[in-house]
Amino acid sequence: MARKNAFYAQSGGVTAVINASACAVIETAREHRDRIGKLYAGRDGIIGALTEDLIDTSKESARAVAALRHTPGGAFGSARYKLRKFEEHRAQYERLIEVFQAHDIGYFFYNGGGDSADTCLKVSRLSAQMGYPIVCVHVPKTMDNDLPVTDCSPGFGSVAKYCATSIREAGYDVASMARTSTRVFIMEVMGRHAGWTTAACGLAAESEGEAPHVLLFPEIAFDQTKFLAKVEQTVKQHGYCVIGVSEGLQDAAGRFVSETGLRDAFGHAQLGGVAPVLASLVKERLGYKYHWAVADYLQRAARHIASKTDVEQSYAVGKAAVELALQGRNAVMPAIVRKSDKPYRWSIGVAELKDVANVEKKMPRDYISADGFHITDRCRQYLLPLIQGEDFPPFRNGMPDYIRLKNVPVAKKLETAFAI
Amino acid sequence: MARKNAFYAQSGGVTAVINASACAVIETAREHRDRIGKLYAGRDGIIGALTEDLIDTSKESARAVAALRHTPGGAFGSARYKLRKFEEHRAQYERLIEVFQAHDIGYFFYNGGGDSADTCLKVSRLSAQMGYPIVCVHVPKTMDNDLPVTDCSPGFGSVAKYCATSIREAGYDVASMARTSTRVFIMEVMGRHAGWTTAACGLAAESEGEAPHVLLFPEIAFDQTKFLAKVEQTVKQHGYCVIGVSEGLQDAAGRFVSETGLRDAFGHAQLGGVAPVLASLVKERLGYKYHWAVADYLQRAARHIASKTDVEQSYAVGKAAVELALQGRNAVMPAIVRKSDKPYRWSIGVAELKDVANVEKKMPRDYISADGFHITDRCRQYLLPLIQGEDFPPFRNGMPDYIRLKNVPVAKKLETAFAI
Repeated sequence: MARKNAFYAQSGGVTAVINASACAVIETAREHRDRIGKLYAGRDGIIGALTEDLIDTSKESARAVAALRHTPGGAFGSARYKLRKFEEHRAQYERLIEVFQAHDIGYFFYNGGGDSADTCLKVSRLSAQMGYPIVCVHVPKTMDNDLPVTDCSPGFGSVAKYCATSIREAGYDVASMARTSTRVFIMEVMGRHAGWTTAACGLAAESEGEAPHVLLFPEIAFDQTKFLAKVEQTVKQHGYCVIGVSEGLQDAAGRFVSETGLRDAFGHAQLGGVAPVLASLVKERLGYKYHWAVADYLQRAARHIASKTDVEQSYAVGKAAVELALQGRNAVMPAIVRKSDKPYRWSIGVAELKDVANVEKKMPRDYISADGFHITDRCRQYLLPLIQGEDFPPFRNGMPDYIRLKNVPVAKKLETAFAI
Repeated sequence: MARKNAFYAQSGGVTAVINASACAVIETAREHRDRIGKLYAGRDGIIGALTEDLIDTSKESARAVAALRHTPGGAFGSARYKLRKFEEHRAQYERLIEVFQAHDIGYFFYNGGGDSADTCLKVSRLSAQMGYPIVCVHVPKTMDNDLPVTDCSPGFGSVAKYCATSIREAGYDVASMARTSTRVFIMEVMGRHAGWTTAACGLAAESEGEAPHVLLFPEIAFDQTKFLAKVEQTVKQHGYCVIGVSEGLQDAAGRFVSETGLRDAFGHAQLGGVAPVLASLVKERLGYKYHWAVADYLQRAARHIASKTDVEQSYAVGKAAVELALQGRNAVMPAIVRKSDKPYRWSIGVAELKDVANVEKKMPRDYISADGFHITDRCRQYLLPLIQGEDFPPFRNGMPDYIRLKNVPVAKKLETAFAI
C-alpha cells in the first residue's frame, strides 16, 4: 500500500491508561513515516470523523506524546456514541468513508470496548464494498474487563489496583476505630453488568479476617437476610466489617438495589449509590455505625496508582495495532495472551473482530465463592498478575503532572456538514 | 528524673500518617533507654489506659516499628472517647494516674486533636495535684487541620494531596467525555466544620478553566440560585463542570444540605452524602448528566499518595515529643513553625497546651474567593507546601505492604476493673 494517512479515535468510557495506547499508536506511526503520513485523531471520538473535526497529532512534540503514557482520560475526547445499525443508517458509515477518502486515510485505529469493535468491523466491510480500502484495527480498552478473546482488557488492571489498594487502606482505618466508632464500611465500585472490579477489591484480603470481608457482585442476586447475617457475624468475629459492592447489585427480581431505596426531595428514585442504601439497611436492622464511599470516576481516572502491567499492555496493544495494520491485517484486534500465571508472562496475539464484536465476557461462576460473598483462589490467580508493578506519573507542585495536548484542528476539505 | 516507663495513645479519627508519629515516638524512646524504660501503648487509645489494657511495644521488631511510618490507620487502635469534665468525673482521671502509677509510667504521649490536647493538659494538672509526677506531651494529629498555634496539623497534608490529585484526575476523565456523557461531576470531601479539605481540591486548578471549577465550603452558606447559575455558566464556557464539596455544606438557616434532600425507604433522612443531593438538584434544574463520588475514609487512609512533607512532619512531632519530655517540658505540644513559603522551610517549635486545648483554627475568609466558589492565591500559597513530595509505601503483590503489629498485651497489675 502506498503512503496513507491514519485515523485514531477513542471510544466509550475512558480509563487511566487509554492514553498509553494513544501514545503507542502515535509513536509507532511516527516510526513508519514511509508508510504512514499524518496521524489524525478524532475530536470526541468517532464524532470527530463524522463531523470532519480532525486533530493533527503531528503538531504535538515527542515529549507531549510521551507524556500521554502517564495521563488519564481521553486526550482527544471520547464519546458515548454508538453508530446505528448498518441497514438503518448506512449514511453514517458512508460519511466515515467520505471523510477518510477526503483526507487520504488508509488506516483506521479505533480504541474502545465491544461496541467500537463492532463499528470497526462494519467500517472494514463497508470499505471493501465501496472499493475504498481502509485497514481497520481495533485497540482494546475497557475498565469493565468484558472483552472476549483477550485475556484481560487494558484499563482494567489499573482500576483493580486502585480498588484493592483503597479498600485495604480503608480497612486499616476502620479496624483501628471500630471499638468506639464505625463498625461497617461500604465501598461502592463500578461495573454495572460484571463483577470484575468488585472481585479486585477481594485481592486486599490476603489472610482470614482481613478487609474486605464481604463482596456483593452483580452476578449474585442480593439476599437481604443472608447479607445482614453475614455482616453481623463478621462484626461479632472481627469487630468490624468492610464491604465492597458493585453499583450493579440486583435483587432476585432483577431490580437494581441502588434504585430500591432512596428518593430525592421530589420523590424521584435516586440514581446511583447502592452504598448508601446498604448503609441505611445496616443501620436500620443491625444498629451499627457506618460509613460509605462511592469511588465513581476516581477509580477509573486514578493514573497515580496505575498498574505497571496494565500500562505496558495498553502501550503494547497500541503499538501492535499499528504493526498489524502495516502488515495489512484488517478487521483484527491485538489481544493479550496469558502464557503463564507464575511467573506471569504474556504476549500479544491477534483476534478477529468478528469474534470480538458484541460478545461480552462474563466473570466465571467459579471465581466467586460458594456463599457468593468473596472471590476464590482461582479468581485471585487470574487477577493478581494484572495489578503488578507501579508506574507513578511525574509530580509537579505535589500533584501528578498530566499533559493537555494542543489538539490543533485539521482544515476541513468537505463542503458538507453532517448532523450527529 | 529516674528511669520511667512511657505511655502512648492514639486518639480520635485516624489519618494516613498518625503511625509515622507512633514510629517516631517508639524509635526515639528506644534511643533513650537510660531514661525511658518500656514504652506502652493504649489499646484503642485512652480506653486502653482506663481499662489497663496496655500493649508492650518492646515486643515489636525494629523493622516492624519502621514499617509504621508507611502504614495508615491507628496501629494500636484509636478511640472516639472524650474524657468527661474533670469536676464531673474526677474518677476517670484518677484512674489514669492509678494505672500509670501501677506501671511506673512517667511519660504520657497523647496523639490526637483538640480534645486530646485538653485531656493531656488535665492529666498533667492532676498529676501535679496528686503528687505523682507525669510529663504530659501532646502529639498533634488531625486531618481537619484545625489545631491552633501549629502552622498545620500533621495528617492534613496527605488528605490534601489525595483530594487535589483525585479531583484533577476525575477532571481529566470528565473533560474527555463531556460532549456526549457526564457534564457535571461532584466530589464530596470530609471536614464538617472547616473547609480545609475542600480548599485543597482547589489546588488542582492551576489555570483558568481547569477542574475543579466550583468549591462549596462549609463556611459559605449554600445559595441554590447562585450555585446553579455558576454551574450553568461553567458548562457553557468549558463544556463541563467539576465541583468539590464539603460534607458539612449548610444552607443559610444552618441546616446541613446533606440532610435536606434524600429520604430512605423508611422516610428517614439519609445521613451523609451531600454530593447526591447536589447531583439531583443539577439534574432536576439544569438537566445535565451527572456523576458523583464520595471519598469518605478513602481520603484519610490513602497512605499510598501521602505527602512526603506531611510524613516528615508527623515523624518530627513524634520525635520532638519524646525529646521535650526528656527535657522535662510538661503540658506542651510540638508545633510546626513555617519559616518561609518559597522555598518552604519549617522547624519544630513548642506550644503550651493551655493555648491549644479546645481552640479551633478556622479557615480565614480571605482564603476563599469573593464569590465564595474557589480559593484565593493566599490560600494556595499556604496549602501548596503541605502537599509537596511523594513517599510511596513499599508494594507487595501489587498492593501497598502495610504492617500489622503483634500488639502483645502487658500483664495487668491492678485488681480493679474500670467500666468505660
